[in-house]
Amino acid sequence: MSADPPLLLVLDLLGVAVFAASGALAAVYAKLDVFGVVVLAAVTALGGGVLRDILLGINPPTTLQDWTFLSVPAVVGLLVFRWHPAVARLQRAVQLADAFGLALFVTTGTATAFSVGAPGVTAVLVGMITGIGGGVLRDVLLREIPTVLRREIYALAALLGAVVVVIGHELGLPSFPVALVGALLVAAVRVLALWRHWNAPVPR
Amino acid sequence: MSADPPLLLVLDLLGVAVFAASGALAAVYAKLDVFGVVVLAAVTALGGGVLRDILLGINPPTTLQDWTFLSVPAVVGLLVFRWHPAVARLQRAVQLADAFGLALFVTTGTATAFSVGAPGVTAVLVGMITGIGGGVLRDVLLREIPTVLRREIYALAALLGAVVVVIGHELGLPSFPVALVGALLVAAVRVLALWRHWNAPVPR
Amino acid sequence: MSADPPLLLVLDLLGVAVFAASGALAAVYAKLDVFGVVVLAAVTALGGGVLRDILLGINPPTTLQDWTFLSVPAVVGLLVFRWHPAVARLQRAVQLADAFGLALFVTTGTATAFSVGAPGVTAVLVGMITGIGGGVLRDVLLREIPTVLRREIYALAALLGAVVVVIGHELGLPSFPVALVGALLVAAVRVLALWRHWNAPVPR
Repeated sequence: MSADPPLLLVLDLLGVAVFAASGALAAVYAKLDVFGVVVLAAVTALGGGVLRDILLGINPPTTLQDWTFLSVPAVVGLLVFRWHPAVARLQRAVQLADAFGLALFVTTGTATAFSVGAPGVTAVLVGMITGIGGGVLRDVLLREIPTVLRREIYALAALLGAVVVVIGHELGLPSFPVALVGALLVAAVRVLALWRHWNAPVPR
Repeated sequence: MSADPPLLLVLDLLGVAVFAASGALAAVYAKLDVFGVVVLAAVTALGGGVLRDILLGINPPTTLQDWTFLSVPAVVGLLVFRWHPAVARLQRAVQLADAFGLALFVTTGTATAFSVGAPGVTAVLVGMITGIGGGVLRDVLLREIPTVLRREIYALAALLGAVVVVIGHELGLPSFPVALVGALLVAAVRVLALWRHWNAPVPR
Repeated sequence: MSADPPLLLVLDLLGVAVFAASGALAAVYAKLDVFGVVVLAAVTALGGGVLRDILLGINPPTTLQDWTFLSVPAVVGLLVFRWHPAVARLQRAVQLADAFGLALFVTTGTATAFSVGAPGVTAVLVGMITGIGGGVLRDVLLREIPTVLRREIYALAALLGAVVVVIGHELGLPSFPVALVGALLVAAVRVLALWRHWNAPVPR
């Protein structure tokens, strides 16, 4: 989101596509109609960025100003609607891609907060919300308790990545390598959690 | 919403009243208390406009600045609370009035986005959200998967109307006739969908 | 929230702590993991203030700019996660403390709306939303119909307190005593509703 160089834009659209696929698949399982599937794809893919911009006072939200960011979830939503059994078989690949999407959204969200002059604590929270907000909206619309609050070290991975970016910023380190380290940390924690079936403790 | 001439204001309040009735009736069925019924009436009637203003950076939202817009859902909520069996018998009339309310909210929402300088793509989305946002909030608060994403070509009607207004704006056509055509299209699609039991395709 | 004198800050943090405990306890019952419990504590404690600031155009929301306001729900969330049976036995004390938290949030929310120049009607609504918003978000995330709309004269108490503050403001009365009267009214209505098992009428 809000990335200038071509490489970042491509990564960004890839993250949007992956989140859109997760939203569309959940909507298919909930028996929404084709239009609902596309809306869920868009909400899941763009919701985190919209929440970020609402909290930071960026009006209208940047991802709602660009056909590119909207056409990706629309196309992904239609593809998933038509070929969802095939997408469901790729579940493991989708989860890995989702780890990467989360990593990207958390680090760009944190950076966006700094770009409008927010303090470190706000940047951590906004980065985390950018990463997990779309998934939370998806689950609320589908009447599920948000998965990210229940399983597999998801929100914690987002928090760790955002904290790394904020610490790097406070120390005055160059922003691109710091963002890379933060993103790799998010992705690594997610992949390890999936692979090793890590879960956070639940109440006794 | 935010309409100047008396006719538009009356139409606007009528749209608010119809959406309020739909929210109050759903709240009655969900066994909310009288205060919850009034709150649901207000959220359903004003929620779309509030989301519109949050996304466009209009603070505080215009419909929260005027007793008129609040007293209508309050009165409607109390009437429905007391006489809900009679209102439920008018179901078909309420659905027709709802089609008209949707048409109005979508077109004024799209126009409001243009009035603050938003680009066309944002105007389409904001118009759609103005129209369907109140119903989505109603369903989320009542723990339902939003009806508009599941049935009867509701969100699609909103999208079509918003697109017509945006195309008219991009072509430089006069805004009132364009808004009228957009609104009639929304209402016509809704009435046809209800009458012919049109539904969008669902996943196999 | 946003209180300057030390006494108000302490009261404010106490209100945050109580709301955090209610959110954490609900999350424990819903079997969220430890991280989800902390997130629910934070959302319940800070959600009303964040909604207030979004509606008033205060960006980023003030409670997201201060480690103090975040560390309280984090600590409370962890304590409740570990010792929730003990907290559950204190249910009556938690409910009384919650009445006090609601009183505080409603009156400071109403005052914040006036401080940015909002009209009276907006101040009433924003005050009410500041008080009940966190609880509504808690219930939506846990897939419950919001308790405040169903039982025990909760939202009505908030409304009454906000109206008192607004009337005092419109009459030009000194703000601190007016806020005190408004807060005491909220707390008194809540305590009476709990003690006498008052409920608002439900539909026949």
